[in-house]
Amino acid sequence: MAASAPSSSGGDPDPNSTNLRPPSTTYDSWCGVAHGCTRKLGMKICGFLQKNNSLEEKSRIVSSFRERQSPKNLLSCENSDRDSRFRRTETDFSNLFARDLLPAKNGEEPTMQFLLEVVDILTNYVRKTFDRSTKVLDFHHPHQLLEGMEGFNLELSDQPESLEQILVDCRDTLKYGVRTGHPRFFNQLSTGLDIIGLAGEWLTSTANTNMFTYEIAPVFVLMEQLTLKKMREIIGWSGGDGDGIFSPGGAISNMYSVMVARYKYFPEVKTKGMSAAPRLVLFTSEHSHYSIKKAGAALGFGTENVILLNTDEKGRVIPADLEAKVIDAKQKGYVPLFVNATAGTTVYGAFDPINEIADICEKYNMWLHVDGAWGGGLLMSRKHRHKLSGVERANSVTWNPHKMMGVPLQCSAILVREKGLLQGCNQMCAGYLFQPDKQYDITYDTGDKAIQCGRHVDIFKFWLMWKAKGTIGFEQHINKCLELSEYLYTKIKNREGYKMVSEGEPQHTNVCFWYIPPSLRGMPDCEDRRERLHKVAPKIKAMMMESGSTMVGYQPQGNKVNFFRMVISNPAATRSDIDFLTDEIERLGQDL
Amino acid sequence: MAASAPSSSGGDPDPNSTNLRPPSTTYDSWCGVAHGCTRKLGMKICGFLQKNNSLEEKSRIVSSFRERQSPKNLLSCENSDRDSRFRRTETDFSNLFARDLLPAKNGEEPTMQFLLEVVDILTNYVRKTFDRSTKVLDFHHPHQLLEGMEGFNLELSDQPESLEQILVDCRDTLKYGVRTGHPRFFNQLSTGLDIIGLAGEWLTSTANTNMFTYEIAPVFVLMEQLTLKKMREIIGWSGGDGDGIFSPGGAISNMYSVMVARYKYFPEVKTKGMSAAPRLVLFTSEHSHYSIKKAGAALGFGTENVILLNTDEKGRVIPADLEAKVIDAKQKGYVPLFVNATAGTTVYGAFDPINEIADICEKYNMWLHVDGAWGGGLLMSRKHRHKLSGVERANSVTWNPHKMMGVPLQCSAILVREKGLLQGCNQMCAGYLFQPDKQYDITYDTGDKAIQCGRHVDIFKFWLMWKAKGTIGFEQHINKCLELSEYLYTKIKNREGYKMVSEGEPQHTNVCFWYIPPSLRGMPDCEDRRERLHKVAPKIKAMMMESGSTMVGYQPQGNKVNFFRMVISNPAATRSDIDFLTDEIERLGQDL
Repeated sequence: MAASAPSSSGGDPDPNSTNLRPPSTTYDSWCGVAHGCTRKLGMKICGFLQKNNSLEEKSRIVSSFRERQSPKNLLSCENSDRDSRFRRTETDFSNLFARDLLPAKNGEEPTMQFLLEVVDILTNYVRKTFDRSTKVLDFHHPHQLLEGMEGFNLELSDQPESLEQILVDCRDTLKYGVRTGHPRFFNQLSTGLDIIGLAGEWLTSTANTNMFTYEIAPVFVLMEQLTLKKMREIIGWSGGDGDGIFSPGGAISNMYSVMVARYKYFPEVKTKGMSAAPRLVLFTSEHSHYSIKKAGAALGFGTENVILLNTDEKGRVIPADLEAKVIDAKQKGYVPLFVNATAGTTVYGAFDPINEIADICEKYNMWLHVDGAWGGGLLMSRKHRHKLSGVERANSVTWNPHKMMGVPLQCSAILVREKGLLQGCNQMCAGYLFQPDKQYDITYDTGDKAIQCGRHVDIFKFWLMWKAKGTIGFEQHINKCLELSEYLYTKIKNREGYKMVSEGEPQHTNVCFWYIPPSLRGMPDCEDRRERLHKVAPKIKAMMMESGSTMVGYQPQGNKVNFFRMVISNPAATRSDIDFLTDEIERLGQDL
Repeated sequence: MAASAPSSSGGDPDPNSTNLRPPSTTYDSWCGVAHGCTRKLGMKICGFLQKNNSLEEKSRIVSSFRERQSPKNLLSCENSDRDSRFRRTETDFSNLFARDLLPAKNGEEPTMQFLLEVVDILTNYVRKTFDRSTKVLDFHHPHQLLEGMEGFNLELSDQPESLEQILVDCRDTLKYGVRTGHPRFFNQLSTGLDIIGLAGEWLTSTANTNMFTYEIAPVFVLMEQLTLKKMREIIGWSGGDGDGIFSPGGAISNMYSVMVARYKYFPEVKTKGMSAAPRLVLFTSEHSHYSIKKAGAALGFGTENVILLNTDEKGRVIPADLEAKVIDAKQKGYVPLFVNATAGTTVYGAFDPINEIADICEKYNMWLHVDGAWGGGLLMSRKHRHKLSGVERANSVTWNPHKMMGVPLQCSAILVREKGLLQGCNQMCAGYLFQPDKQYDITYDTGDKAIQCGRHVDIFKFWLMWKAKGTIGFEQHINKCLELSEYLYTKIKNREGYKMVSEGEPQHTNVCFWYIPPSLRGMPDCEDRRERLHKVAPKIKAMMMESGSTMVGYQPQGNKVNFFRMVISNPAATRSDIDFLTDEIERLGQDL
């Protein structure tokens, strides 16, 4: 076999020609038993026993072990036919450097010890993340971190640092960061630390490959294909047909939707530019994510041609407003191209009425995109998926498993109902990547569907989580998060010192509310009160961050002054954490 | 402190109120010594010794150890004041499921065991990656993998699978993948597996956060800022001034450059769209990366307005051709906006003459972008950076540390000389993320510079590698790769059966050549020979992949039939691997 026939011809010596396996022990087989201990220590045990026990005693020890241990257990502690397992030893990293690690000669042992030391740091971090007695963060201002915290120096230099310093840097990086998996971290739509997903990410970075061709990512490319098909089935597209790709986040997924819509209706824009098309107009809710406007700016539509739609008091698009604005645009001679319906708005968690919007899109021949970056996860729940009723009528859907489904960042899918558009829109047929004369079925190469060339492997963690939890596992997670937000809503809707931003039960896990400090409770609504109330949430948030106790978002919206937006996607959160949050708001806010 | 005062009010019980630490051992202190072994086994050693040794003997053993071991070493093997360290035990994962892991009650022990088991799989993979007796890949066709390989089933289901199956899936995923870090993997511009970078990625995924605000990524945001400044200094921009961001790959970085150029000259396009500007023209080499055309298509310029420049025989832009085409465009009434100079083309590794192109850009008031995705790394080498001479005159630079600098995927920077343009071009001021009333200096929030919203943390691995290697470490790596390509070039340039695609020493590590099988060697150049030669590289490549021995790219270019493109960025590669490659080409190709 070619693979096992290393070349012997010339050049520098092949580092693998020397034996890089850990030196096989010369102690007798009993010593293998002690190898599980840190190796150094294990050898010391062995040495000690060799000095202090007679040969007879050693053989007695060994045979006694053999009686107690299954062969499998014994083997696992020795070098066996299976992969040998490394144990952490007390390694002095102060004299080791990156250059001593693989592929360096004899680099295997320091490499393994270094990686295991890193894993020790990481697993400790994981344990602490879930421990409520730890802080969510240890806040420092930028200038403090830049000045250097107790030897944590961010500056880069010409000379290498020892691996000991590198390990210290790893610890410090985690120490001064934010525990986004902490049960009391509610600050973002992406929270939590899924252990299976984490394992998936570790594997992904170890595999260190690229999604553009089947050639170098055969397994991941197929996983992506099967997972996207499954998502399309769940959306309700017949037979799971259609197309899709994982992209670097919801904003890029939304950008894809606009590009594909433009290509569908005006394919000549690809070659001739926007001047080949009439003035094209995009429609999206005033509450929708800003990425639709960003896409409008980037792709050459212009933000003025992104028309914002009015919403009802709960933040849902008013279909009649859409139709009126479509008619208005047409009367001006513009071409209504694209409507974005949001399934789960960023602040209110509102679901636009997809079916009514779809009717209007059909009537006026417009592309319907559903931005389910945040709310798409609800499709996994039989109880809540009705909130996306009509999603199967969409031409494209953004759905971010890294939000409501708890998949580690980044994991965002753009799904397109019509096959071939993504490819048609983006392909450039680069000869060096997409050779037509490969030995395998090149329809599996995905690169020409993307606006990227290289594309990070975002699929594996998600696929692995799906395997490990099953569809029902995601459903349970989503139902639980929505129950928790209902718990919060029920708790505070009539509680003294709280005012909900809109009436009625939230549709998603977003619960938006003002906390009114005692000093403002009796005050009539006036400019002074509004100004003071506007400052409450930022002040409480700042104190939360300084104390490191919890984190929750706030923002103004339209003419509404700053209010808290509580969102729950964290699988570690429980009712007690919700209680903790309200207690904390009240504790910090009572004297404001 | 708020953080250490858990709420006691109501709801479901706090899972952290129970003690999740590993049960403290009841054996005496000597048992701690054996804890390093798999814990189960360790306990059996302890139990055995307790039965078979007198107390006196045990105390003698302990004191003897104490003499030999520093207290630090002893402590590290026990639960101590430091974080307790988990040891792998023989865990039965067949009855464990994702739901048993953290945040589940009592989930800490199975979580740690599961993660350590995954790490064992990964570290074995790492070891094998560097072992030349292993294959680069174990090739299977898509239909084979889809049909299920020995129980490796890619399909997703409703019900969860056991953690045992998940671990098997992890092993299989790696088994059927491609070892991109293998010393004989030369297929892509991104190769190798840097151990420090890998550790950095593991930490990044454990931290699982997002670059958009300082609030939730304080350390990473500062690392990005300092690293980008360092890169700008190396480019040669005075004081490292300017701006930049890490993006999801070189194609997106190049897209940024076009967007920023357009914003600089025609800021009204952001709001009014491309119709507010005259017909804008972009210029780039016929050998440049296809992402410039992709950007032209996506951003609404149209690929017809991306003018390809002629190159010399080595693939470098001919400046006179640029000037002629600029003049031609102006005569047609179009506006020349942007010139891309490639530093290291994808196939030939050619460096466009930046200074001469910069002269023309200045003369005609055009934006100069340098696409150094592949060649930017040479800036780290005092010996080779002259190839990018003039780069300091660029308005923007793409530089992918994940290519020539060996950083794991993805890591690509777009650097912009003028501050404020990125922000001006992309900002939408989303209230829910970029609150103006935060307690810290909000100029550190980076999100509004990006076309993305959420942005993956790509900086940490790179920062950590820089710390660990120093600037000189990168320099050594780059010099070594270029020496290896020189070795290959020198070896084959006059060797029978090889023909170089262009004369003279390559500028980068790209070495492009035809292998001419004996059957074609005497043949005069004619259509039949060309057709047959065109099939040689694909056939050899297919056989390489089937045997799994090595991987190298090939492609046609212009009117040149398929040739091999050898590239070296893999730090594990040595001369013997270069020899192996040519031996393998000759072995597989001799009978074609």
